Amino acid sequence: MTRAEFPGRRVLGMSIIGVGIDVAEIDRFAASLERTPGLAQRLFLESELLLPSGERRGVASLAVRFAAKEALAKALGAPAGLHWTDAEVYVEDSGQPRLRVKGTVAARAAELGVQSWHVSLSHDAGVASAVVIAEG
Amino acid sequence: MTRAEFPGRRVLGMSIIGVGIDVAEIDRFAASLERTPGLAQRLFLESELLLPSGERRGVASLAVRFAAKEALAKALGAPAGLHWTDAEVYVEDSGQPRLRVKGTVAARAAELGVQSWHVSLSHDAGVASAVVIAEG
Amino acid sequence: MTRAEFPGRRVLGMSIIGVGIDVAEIDRFAASLERTPGLAQRLFLESELLLPSGERRGVASLAVRFAAKEALAKALGAPAGLHWTDAEVYVEDSGQPRLRVKGTVAARAAELGVQSWHVSLSHDAGVASAVVIAEG
Repeated sequence: MTRAEFPGRRVLGMSIIGVGIDVAEIDRFAASLERTPGLAQRLFLESELLLPSGERRGVASLAVRFAAKEALAKALGAPAGLHWTDAEVYVEDSGQPRLRVKGTVAARAAELGVQSWHVSLSHDAGVASAVVIAEG
Repeated sequence: MTRAEFPGRRVLGMSIIGVGIDVAEIDRFAASLERTPGLAQRLFLESELLLPSGERRGVASLAVRFAAKEALAKALGAPAGLHWTDAEVYVEDSGQPRLRVKGTVAARAAELGVQSWHVSLSHDAGVASAVVIAEG
Repeated sequence: MTRAEFPGRRVLGMSIIGVGIDVAEIDRFAASLERTPGLAQRLFLESELLLPSGERRGVASLAVRFAAKEALAKALGAPAGLHWTDAEVYVEDSGQPRLRVKGTVAARAAELGVQSWHVSLSHDAGVASAVVIAEG
């Protein structure tokens, strides 16, 4: 008997599928980005590289998005084959960061029964941190 | 059909409303407190500024409480208009930190359906960290 | 009426018992290990001290395991009397870290109704971080 048989009560049946944390040094991340041509494009969607204003997003803000993607991958058990750009950190009008997944990441999430994502970001002290909870 | 119709089974229906993390440099926080008259009173309740012994709480311990308030705000989507002193970090007899909310913070929490708070604090390496989960 | 009466629907009734975070400076942890004979054996199981290859685990990897144990203890309210070696961080074939508890830690977890553990580890920037969620 799966939870899918109780669609009307799904909200009553949430449980945690996984949690992920990532704490990354911003300077080290910045050095990687500089050293490796094409890395930013491999890690981020164009929508993540730009601010709502159209300017390039700063490195601390990118580092924290990378931490979120790492945390998301850990919450899914960090399987091989996930593409970084199949997870997106976007920002609601209210300013709240959210996760959106597709492709390889969405497939893994579906396999585990993930129904919603929770994410939080922080950067200070030269350190970018993120925590992700996958709920199913 | 809302969960409020199943009061006796509420514990069966918990789900995550939001998560928040904050990692803050203790030195930078200490400098802000020193530089800004009245900041401590704007951020903290008198009960938070004092140790159970009646002595002033040290700056690392305050920094971690500030991190908890930031994490709590993020778990609520970090809306405008929350007052810092409407969230309180208190310590149970067992030593466990807990969150208590009122006023602006309680109103936002009620709007989102938050029924319980989970918090954890850490400080080391000159860094104060907190994670908060809002459950509803 | 306890959840135990609905064994077939237990997954529908999960809620969060506690969360824990720990962020620890790796150098400071390494210094403690060096300074204190027998500390490693008091903190870790033999299975944690060794890599799957049979080599000794490095200090960053031990520091992150210590952070996980601290986070686990916080998720249980950090009561007195828990033995460090009653919590074990093990790694699944997939590479995912997991928690296993016994003795003092299992007793406390049972008292609080914990049914599953979620853990995530991170180390970078000289800092070992872990987050744990106890779900019941």
